[in-house]
Amino acid sequence: MGRAAGGAHSRHRGAEVTDAPAPGAAMHALVRELYPICRSITGDGLRQTLARLGGDIPLVRHEVPTGTRVFDWTVPREWNIRDAYVKNPAGERVIDFRRHNLHVVNYSVPVHRTMTLAELRPHLHSLPDRPELIPYRTSYYKESWGFCLPHRQLEQLPDTGYEVCIDSTLEDGHLTYGECLVEGRTQEEVLISCHACHPSLADDNLSGLAVATFLAQHLAKQPRRYSYRFVFVPGTIGAITWLSRNEELTRNIRHGLVLTCIGDRASFTYKRSRRGNAAIDRAVEHVLSHADPGHKVVPFSPYGYDERQYCSPGFNLPVGCLMRSHHGQFPQYHTSADNLDFVTPQALAGAFDTLLSVFDVLEHDGHYLNLKPRCEPQLGQRGLYGATGGSGPKQVEMAMLWVLNFSDGEASLLDIAQRSGMPFAVVREAAALLERHDLLARAT
Amino acid sequence: MGRAAGGAHSRHRGAEVTDAPAPGAAMHALVRELYPICRSITGDGLRQTLARLGGDIPLVRHEVPTGTRVFDWTVPREWNIRDAYVKNPAGERVIDFRRHNLHVVNYSVPVHRTMTLAELRPHLHSLPDRPELIPYRTSYYKESWGFCLPHRQLEQLPDTGYEVCIDSTLEDGHLTYGECLVEGRTQEEVLISCHACHPSLADDNLSGLAVATFLAQHLAKQPRRYSYRFVFVPGTIGAITWLSRNEELTRNIRHGLVLTCIGDRASFTYKRSRRGNAAIDRAVEHVLSHADPGHKVVPFSPYGYDERQYCSPGFNLPVGCLMRSHHGQFPQYHTSADNLDFVTPQALAGAFDTLLSVFDVLEHDGHYLNLKPRCEPQLGQRGLYGATGGSGPKQVEMAMLWVLNFSDGEASLLDIAQRSGMPFAVVREAAALLERHDLLARAT
Amino acid sequence: MGRAAGGAHSRHRGAEVTDAPAPGAAMHALVRELYPICRSITGDGLRQTLARLGGDIPLVRHEVPTGTRVFDWTVPREWNIRDAYVKNPAGERVIDFRRHNLHVVNYSVPVHRTMTLAELRPHLHSLPDRPELIPYRTSYYKESWGFCLPHRQLEQLPDTGYEVCIDSTLEDGHLTYGECLVEGRTQEEVLISCHACHPSLADDNLSGLAVATFLAQHLAKQPRRYSYRFVFVPGTIGAITWLSRNEELTRNIRHGLVLTCIGDRASFTYKRSRRGNAAIDRAVEHVLSHADPGHKVVPFSPYGYDERQYCSPGFNLPVGCLMRSHHGQFPQYHTSADNLDFVTPQALAGAFDTLLSVFDVLEHDGHYLNLKPRCEPQLGQRGLYGATGGSGPKQVEMAMLWVLNFSDGEASLLDIAQRSGMPFAVVREAAALLERHDLLARAT
Repeated sequence: MGRAAGGAHSRHRGAEVTDAPAPGAAMHALVRELYPICRSITGDGLRQTLARLGGDIPLVRHEVPTGTRVFDWTVPREWNIRDAYVKNPAGERVIDFRRHNLHVVNYSVPVHRTMTLAELRPHLHSLPDRPELIPYRTSYYKESWGFCLPHRQLEQLPDTGYEVCIDSTLEDGHLTYGECLVEGRTQEEVLISCHACHPSLADDNLSGLAVATFLAQHLAKQPRRYSYRFVFVPGTIGAITWLSRNEELTRNIRHGLVLTCIGDRASFTYKRSRRGNAAIDRAVEHVLSHADPGHKVVPFSPYGYDERQYCSPGFNLPVGCLMRSHHGQFPQYHTSADNLDFVTPQALAGAFDTLLSVFDVLEHDGHYLNLKPRCEPQLGQRGLYGATGGSGPKQVEMAMLWVLNFSDGEASLLDIAQRSGMPFAVVREAAALLERHDLLARAT
Repeated sequence: MGRAAGGAHSRHRGAEVTDAPAPGAAMHALVRELYPICRSITGDGLRQTLARLGGDIPLVRHEVPTGTRVFDWTVPREWNIRDAYVKNPAGERVIDFRRHNLHVVNYSVPVHRTMTLAELRPHLHSLPDRPELIPYRTSYYKESWGFCLPHRQLEQLPDTGYEVCIDSTLEDGHLTYGECLVEGRTQEEVLISCHACHPSLADDNLSGLAVATFLAQHLAKQPRRYSYRFVFVPGTIGAITWLSRNEELTRNIRHGLVLTCIGDRASFTYKRSRRGNAAIDRAVEHVLSHADPGHKVVPFSPYGYDERQYCSPGFNLPVGCLMRSHHGQFPQYHTSADNLDFVTPQALAGAFDTLLSVFDVLEHDGHYLNLKPRCEPQLGQRGLYGATGGSGPKQVEMAMLWVLNFSDGEASLLDIAQRSGMPFAVVREAAALLERHDLLARAT
Repeated sequence: MGRAAGGAHSRHRGAEVTDAPAPGAAMHALVRELYPICRSITGDGLRQTLARLGGDIPLVRHEVPTGTRVFDWTVPREWNIRDAYVKNPAGERVIDFRRHNLHVVNYSVPVHRTMTLAELRPHLHSLPDRPELIPYRTSYYKESWGFCLPHRQLEQLPDTGYEVCIDSTLEDGHLTYGECLVEGRTQEEVLISCHACHPSLADDNLSGLAVATFLAQHLAKQPRRYSYRFVFVPGTIGAITWLSRNEELTRNIRHGLVLTCIGDRASFTYKRSRRGNAAIDRAVEHVLSHADPGHKVVPFSPYGYDERQYCSPGFNLPVGCLMRSHHGQFPQYHTSADNLDFVTPQALAGAFDTLLSVFDVLEHDGHYLNLKPRCEPQLGQRGLYGATGGSGPKQVEMAMLWVLNFSDGEASLLDIAQRSGMPFAVVREAAALLERHDLLARAT
C-alpha cells in the first residue's frame, strides 16, 4: 500500500524520476545477504557488513581505537565470536549459535565449562509471553555472558549437567563505522543515519541499511542541491563517536533522518525532531499525508535510536526518525520473528519512494514572488488555463492560483502545498510553469 | 430558519433597528424582475440590470471602453444578443433562446447556417448526470458559439439537418459597472461587491444584487460611522477593472464582503478573507455563531468569486465571501434549476438581517476601559444588578461582569462577546449601561 | 477515588511527605462542629467560626467598622440573629430557625407581627423543582425579611393567621475576617482564600475552611520556600475589604487559589485564573491530570466566588478556583441538601492530598541546565541506568533522559513533566539524581 501510494505520488516528481520500478527486490536480496552475519557494536561482523555495502556505494570505513574518549563515553573493547553452544550429556548442542546468532547474549565474555542446570539457569533468557521466539539481548558495558532461547525450550531443559561454551574474545581493537558522502551543488547536507550493529534482525535494521544504500546509489545519478551524507554506525556509541569526531561538520547539516524498521508491512510512523517544526518534519509529514493515509506522526522523545544523540540539546540537529512499525511496540521487535519474512520488497520499495519524495521537497522548496501581484494574471491568454468556462479548473491550474496568491515572499512552496492540500510535486510543477511565463520569480 | 434566527438576534440591536419586517418579499420581487434579462460581462443586459437597481438607490454607472488595459487584462469587445435558435426541417425551434437565455453559450459569436446533427453536435452542451437541466456555459475569451440544452433532449434530437442561428454581435463598445456610495461619518469604507454578469440564474447572483440593494437603501437611513461602498460588477474582469481604476481608494477599505448565492434555503457558509483573522472574519463568524447553528466557515482559497481579486497578494484586502450554498457545490449551481423557486423571501430576509448584525458589530466594536478596575464595582447600588441573592444574574448583568473584567484596553467588545459566548448586541448594551454610570469609558 | 489517586501520587513526593494518612476524619469532624452555626457576612456566627479555626492555627482576626469605604463598596451594618419563627394559631412553630438556620433569609431585618397567609406569602421562598429542600437566600444590600421552606410544606400551609417573628439586629458594628500567615524562606506568597459567610451549608464552604485549616497546620511543619497566606473572609465584601487593606501586599502574591465546594464526591473542577496560563494554572492542571482522570478544567469567567475580586483587572492576580462540584451547577447547591452527608472524609482527604501535590510543584519547579549537553552522558557507568539491554528503562531512568534532553534553560521541570507525560514528582526525583551526579545544575 505504501508502495502503491508512493508510486502514484512519483508520477508528479517530474524530470528526475526514473521510470524504473523502485528496487524492492534488489533491496530485499541485500537484506537476505546480510541477515546471517553476527553484528555487534564492534568487531568483524560489523566490518563485513560495511564491506558488503561498500560494494554498492563508495563507503569510507573508519576505525576508532578502544579507549578513545568520545564525549562522556569511551570506545569499548572489540568483541568477536566464533562459536557458542550448550551441550547435553549426550554431546548434542541443545543451544547452538550456529543455528541462530540471537542464541548468544551479544558481547558475552568467553566461557567454557560444565555446570548444572541450576548454575546455568541465571544465564538463560527467554520471553514467557512469546514462548516460541528467541529474544535479542546485549551486555555491552557490563561483563557478562548468557544464552537466549524460546521459553518453551527453556521449560523443557532436562535437569542435568551441560557443557557451556562461548568462544568469543573481548580485547583492545576498534569501533568501526562507515560513511558515504554523495556531494551536491552546495555543502549543505542531508544526514541519513542507520544503526548497523544488530545481528540477525531484518527490519531492525537491515531494512534501514538496504534502503539507505540504494538511496545513495540513486541520488548519485541525479542533479542535486544538497550533499547527502549516509552514516552507518553502531547504535548509541557509534553515533556518539561520529558526532565527537565531526562537531564542525554538523554545522552544515540542514536536514536529517534516522532510518529504522522501515521494511515491514505497517504504515509509516514519523517521529519528529526535537525542534518539532523543522523543515524535515514538515517535509516528511507532507509527503506521508499524501502517500500513506494510515501514517502516524509522534512527537520527539529522548528514547529510541540515534536521534537521541543527534537531538541532544548540545547539538539539537533537525533530525527525525522514519519507521514503519515503531521500535519497541511490535511483538516481533528484538526477537527471532524479526526475520526475512517480516520485511517485504514492497515495503522496502515504498520506503525508498517515500524518501525520494521527501528529498524532492527538500531540494525544491523555496520562496517565490508573484510578479503580477495585483489581481490574477490572465492565465488563459498564455494557454495556462482552460478557455471554456463551466467546468472547474484542472489540478495544476488550481495549483497555479494557489502559488500566485500566496507567493508574497512569506510562504514557501511547501507552505502552499500544505495550505492548499495539494501534493508538493503539483505545486512545484505549477511554480515551474509560472516561472517559465515570467509570472513568478524566486525570492532572493 | 436563518430568518427566524436573524429575527431573534435583531431584538438586541437596539436603537437603529426598525421594527419593520426585513424586506424579504420586496427583495424576492426584485429578483423576479431581473431574472429574465440576459446579462453578460458586457452589453445591454448588464446595463438594463444596473438601470433597474438605480431606480432604488443612487447608482453611478461607469462605462469602460473595449481595449482598455486593466492590470494584466484587456476590456473585451461588447457582446449583445437579440435572438438564437436551432430549427428542425419543419421550421420548429427545437432550441430557443427566447424560452431560456441559458440555451445560448454566453458570448457566442454570430452564426447562421444549416448543418447536420453531426456538425452541430460539438456545439451542444448538456449535463449527463442532471439530464433535465440546462447548463450555463460561457466563452468570453475564446471566439466560439454553442447551445446548451437538457441531456434528455440532446439524446432525442433526430439525425437530420438544422437551421442554426445566433443573432449576436461582438464589437468594440464598453464594459459597464455600477457603484453606490453610502457616505458615513468617516471615510473608512466597508466594501460590498456583487457580480452582476450572470443571465437567468437567481441565487447566483440576483440574490446578492437584491440583498445589497436593500442594504444600501436601509443604511442610508441610519446614522453610521463607516461609508459603505456597493460595487456591482461583471465577475473577474469587472472586479479587476474596478480595482485598476480605484487603487488609491482601496486604502480606505477597512472591511469587505463579496455576496453571492445568498438567497437559497441552506445555512450560511462564510469564506474567510486571505488574512484569515481580519475584523470582518471575526465579526461574521461571531454573528453566524449565534444566528445560524448550521453555518460553516471555510478558509480562504484562491478560487471562487471576486474575493480572488480583492485578496490577490498585491491588494490583500480584508474581504470575505458570504454565501448560503457554496458556489460550485450544489446540484442547481450554474443550471436552469437555479431559478425563482430556488431562492425564497425568507432566505433573502435572513441574509439581510445577518448582514445588518455584522455591520452592527463593525460599527460598534471598540476598546473600553473599566474606570473602577480594582474589585467589582457595586452594581446593585446603581440599580444595575438584582438585589436579592439566590437566583443567578440576568444575561445583561452577566455581560456587565464580563465587560468590566476584560475592559483593560486589550480586549474589544467583540473579543469579550467571543470570550463570554454572548451575542455582541448584549455585550454592547452592557457596555452602554456601564458607560452611562461612569464605570466604563472608551479607550483612546 | 480522589483520595486513592492522591495517595498513589504522594508516594513520589519524597522527603517532606508524612506517612500519616491524610486527616479526612479530622476535617470532617471540624465540618460537623461548624455546621450548626448561623454565619453571615458579618456578626457573631462568623466570629465564632473564626475563633474555632483559631484553635487549630494561629489566626489573626480583623474587625472593620461599619461604614468603612472599601473601593466602590461600604462595609455594611452588622447582622445578628437570636431566633425566628412563624407560628400558627395553635402557637406551634411551623417554620423554626432553631431547627435549621436556612429557614430565615440571611440579613433579614427584625419583624414581629401577626399577618394572614396572603400577607406572609411574598416573604416565603421555596424551590418548586426540588420540593423537599430548604433554599438558601440572602438580602445583604436591600432591607428585607423572609423565610425559606420546602415547597411541599409551603403548598400545605393553611390559610389562616400567623405570628411572624425575626429576632435579629442590623446595627453599626464590624465586618470580621481571619488571616493566617505560614511564613516561608521567602516573602513570595501563595494565597489561599475561602469564603466563610455561609450558614449551615457543608460543602459550600465548610469544606474549604476545613481543608485550608489543615493545610495551614501541615505546612507549618514543613520546610518551604513560599509563605502561605490563608484568608477566611465573607464572600465578595470580605475579599474586597481584604484587597482594599492589602494592596501593597498583593505584589508578593505569586500563586493563589480560592477553595470552595471541595468536600463532595465529585471529580475536581479547576477554574483557571484570568491569566489562563499562570504557573498555578499549569501546576493544578498537571496534578489533576495524574490524580483525577475525571477532572475538568474550565476557563476563567467573572462570575463565581472571590476569584472575581482577585482577578479583577486592577489586580489580575494569578488566582484560580479549585472545586469538586461546580458551584451553582449541582442540585444540592445552596439548599439544605448541602449537608453533612454530602461531604465525606475521603473527599476532604483527596482535596488535601491534591493541594499538597500542587504546592510540591510550586515549591520545586525550576529551570535546570544539562552539564553534558552533547550526546547523552553514560548513565549506566554511574549506576543510574540498568546495565543489561533488552528490557526498557524504568520510569525514573526515562525521566532522567527527559530532564537531560530538555534542560537547556528554556523548559522548567514542570514543562518537562507535561511534555513527557510523567508526574512532576518523578521528574523532580530524576533531576535530583542528576544534580547529585553533577550532570545537572540549577539555571541562574
